[in-house]
Amino acid sequence: MSDAKEIMRRLNALAQISEDPGKLTRTFASPAMRRANQLVARWMRRAGMQVRPDAIGNLIGHYAGKKPGAKILLLGSHLDTVRDAGKFDGPLGVILAIACVEHLYRRQIRFPFAVQVIGFADEEGVRYQTAYLGSKALAGCFDPADLQRKDAAGISMAEAIRIFGGHPTKIKSAAMNPKELLGYIEAHIEQGPVLEKENLALATVTVIAGQTRAKIIFQGRAGHAGTTPMNLRKDALCAAAEFILAAEHLARNTTGLVATIGQIHAGPGAVNVIAGETRLSLDVRHAKDSTRRSALKKLKLISQKIAKKRGLKIDFNLVHEASSVACSTKLSGLLAQAVLRRQKKLLQLPSGAGHDTAVMAGICPAAMLFIRCKNGISHHPAESVKSGDVKIALEVMNDFLQWTAEKYRQIHDF
Amino acid sequence: MSDAKEIMRRLNALAQISEDPGKLTRTFASPAMRRANQLVARWMRRAGMQVRPDAIGNLIGHYAGKKPGAKILLLGSHLDTVRDAGKFDGPLGVILAIACVEHLYRRQIRFPFAVQVIGFADEEGVRYQTAYLGSKALAGCFDPADLQRKDAAGISMAEAIRIFGGHPTKIKSAAMNPKELLGYIEAHIEQGPVLEKENLALATVTVIAGQTRAKIIFQGRAGHAGTTPMNLRKDALCAAAEFILAAEHLARNTTGLVATIGQIHAGPGAVNVIAGETRLSLDVRHAKDSTRRSALKKLKLISQKIAKKRGLKIDFNLVHEASSVACSTKLSGLLAQAVLRRQKKLLQLPSGAGHDTAVMAGICPAAMLFIRCKNGISHHPAESVKSGDVKIALEVMNDFLQWTAEKYRQIHDF
Repeated sequence: MSDAKEIMRRLNALAQISEDPGKLTRTFASPAMRRANQLVARWMRRAGMQVRPDAIGNLIGHYAGKKPGAKILLLGSHLDTVRDAGKFDGPLGVILAIACVEHLYRRQIRFPFAVQVIGFADEEGVRYQTAYLGSKALAGCFDPADLQRKDAAGISMAEAIRIFGGHPTKIKSAAMNPKELLGYIEAHIEQGPVLEKENLALATVTVIAGQTRAKIIFQGRAGHAGTTPMNLRKDALCAAAEFILAAEHLARNTTGLVATIGQIHAGPGAVNVIAGETRLSLDVRHAKDSTRRSALKKLKLISQKIAKKRGLKIDFNLVHEASSVACSTKLSGLLAQAVLRRQKKLLQLPSGAGHDTAVMAGICPAAMLFIRCKNGISHHPAESVKSGDVKIALEVMNDFLQWTAEKYRQIHDF
Repeated sequence: MSDAKEIMRRLNALAQISEDPGKLTRTFASPAMRRANQLVARWMRRAGMQVRPDAIGNLIGHYAGKKPGAKILLLGSHLDTVRDAGKFDGPLGVILAIACVEHLYRRQIRFPFAVQVIGFADEEGVRYQTAYLGSKALAGCFDPADLQRKDAAGISMAEAIRIFGGHPTKIKSAAMNPKELLGYIEAHIEQGPVLEKENLALATVTVIAGQTRAKIIFQGRAGHAGTTPMNLRKDALCAAAEFILAAEHLARNTTGLVATIGQIHAGPGAVNVIAGETRLSLDVRHAKDSTRRSALKKLKLISQKIAKKRGLKIDFNLVHEASSVACSTKLSGLLAQAVLRRQKKLLQLPSGAGHDTAVMAGICPAAMLFIRCKNGISHHPAESVKSGDVKIALEVMNDFLQWTAEKYRQIHDF
């Protein structure tokens, strides 16, 4: 069996480990997560790695370098999933990394640095509504206050970690020493349609886009749909419609900007009553923080103009803001070389979605490899990746490791 | 106490009779409805009327004409309410009509026709989701199949009528003989803001507007809000927004047309997911059926163009259609004369809302008098009418009856 086919087989096996019968759901510190870690640990050991869990439940496989005490190159992604998830978002990066190490182990190749494969315990944040628990613990920026959070069943995070076999009082011990880390590389499905559109298997990632979320409320006046003439209306849904199109227009005319209204609620919500109030979500992302912030300013202004013109009240509240995080140009450069050996064209994409890479970039050089997924679909059972693309991704990662090691031998850096 | 103040006092007393503590809800054939009928019957008797309920529970007060067997002029409205209703929608027309008859009775005036006051048992249709039960029974167009309908508690309409004291097997007996009817006059709050805007107390009604309701579904493609570039999206909410504004634009530019999207649902409905599907309600009304139908055609075409341009699927389904119903020009003319005696300007409005008048117009000449209500608010506890406006309405109705009788004496017709 080819290595790519074995990776697919393992992803299918992992996808059977779920807390919801009939669909794939694997949340932080769940029994399903423990069984997944046990299975992945077996594959790690088979690839010549020493395996250990850390205090929060991350699974770490260590493939030693030539000498003891060598620095560490980290490969990996997360092993938790969203509810009713696909098989690839997260696990693909971990299983691919194990295959890379297995490739070295079979050929008895040792580098001047250790390679560690990490399966993060929580990236999606489904159970406690807080993302990146795993990488935050590793990067030393875990917030101990989160331990008090309760899940839907009322179990605190501290208790969940304890039941899982972790050590909630020793999360600090999971933090890696940045001085020992050469870098972090994450392979991940694109979760978008661009690679498919470009007919390419892989892309490197330039930056994890910054993001702003806002809640917008247009307050108009409800009224009888039959008896209120158009010129006497203060229709909050018409105002919202104007704003939705304005946001779309701005994003379409600003390179790389995405703006999304995914949630809308119009009240009172009766067929024969004019909407008196409309609530909207707004999600705006861009690789460049200044572009995103300027877009937000414009959108706020537009919403105010719409409200003023129509005699409505407007509330425009930011609820979440995250700056963009740049990937390491050195690591991405080496990755790009490897990509260019296997496909004719290099595509460098910003990541519109958040990833553990964004956290890891805080303590070491980090880079990402995007893998094409069918129709750009993710967070859905229809998530799909071609075996042929996995094969190329594995070759690229193997080349990348080889070349990184060569470069490191020459200059003790990348 | 002036007659207008007595009318207000009675409306307040009626508003105390509710099936929901702390708010006004009085649905078809409820115990509250029975108590309301008992109270109204008392007022009818005090005004010299003979009172009888009919088989479906309408309350009818008869003020005899000069001779037995004289034709009948009907005055009235409905005594049921929506949930958490105002005090005026319906009851005002009934109580005002009783005051008119009381005015005649005190002066010992008899007309060459009888005057009957009717309190319809159901116009709002809250309990069985079917409107105009009362006037349909009177007009002989009650559908016996409706007797099988169940309310939220599982009680059939037949059973409810029986418990109320009516005769579900004899609804046909409630039908009036059109040949005996001279006409039906309904005074009702405007339920809209036009009279207030025009600074007038009263208007006559030209027509009950025709109405079309449609359900519209835009089917696009859900996707990740961060990773799907704008040019690769099929955003069903953006398409809906375009349609909402197109409907508003068409209605604003077609005299008398109203178009309302009161309900919207965007799925899957997550902050970070592009809307894959949007469902909209559409309510279109106009006094002229051809104008309304042409508007619907245009809107359907517009929705298809929007969908095509954006690569979406569209479903556009009519779910309800009612033709417009013209008021009697003769009766409305007499009413208009009476209005012009009491206010300087005559306003003739189409009614965007449905009324018992629309059903009664099927069997006899019918006319409506609109009374100003505060901010156009209706179907809400904040519904409010000025005592001064009620005073003018009563004078207008008294004049109208007097002049109608004079005309009838001359030509035995209006």
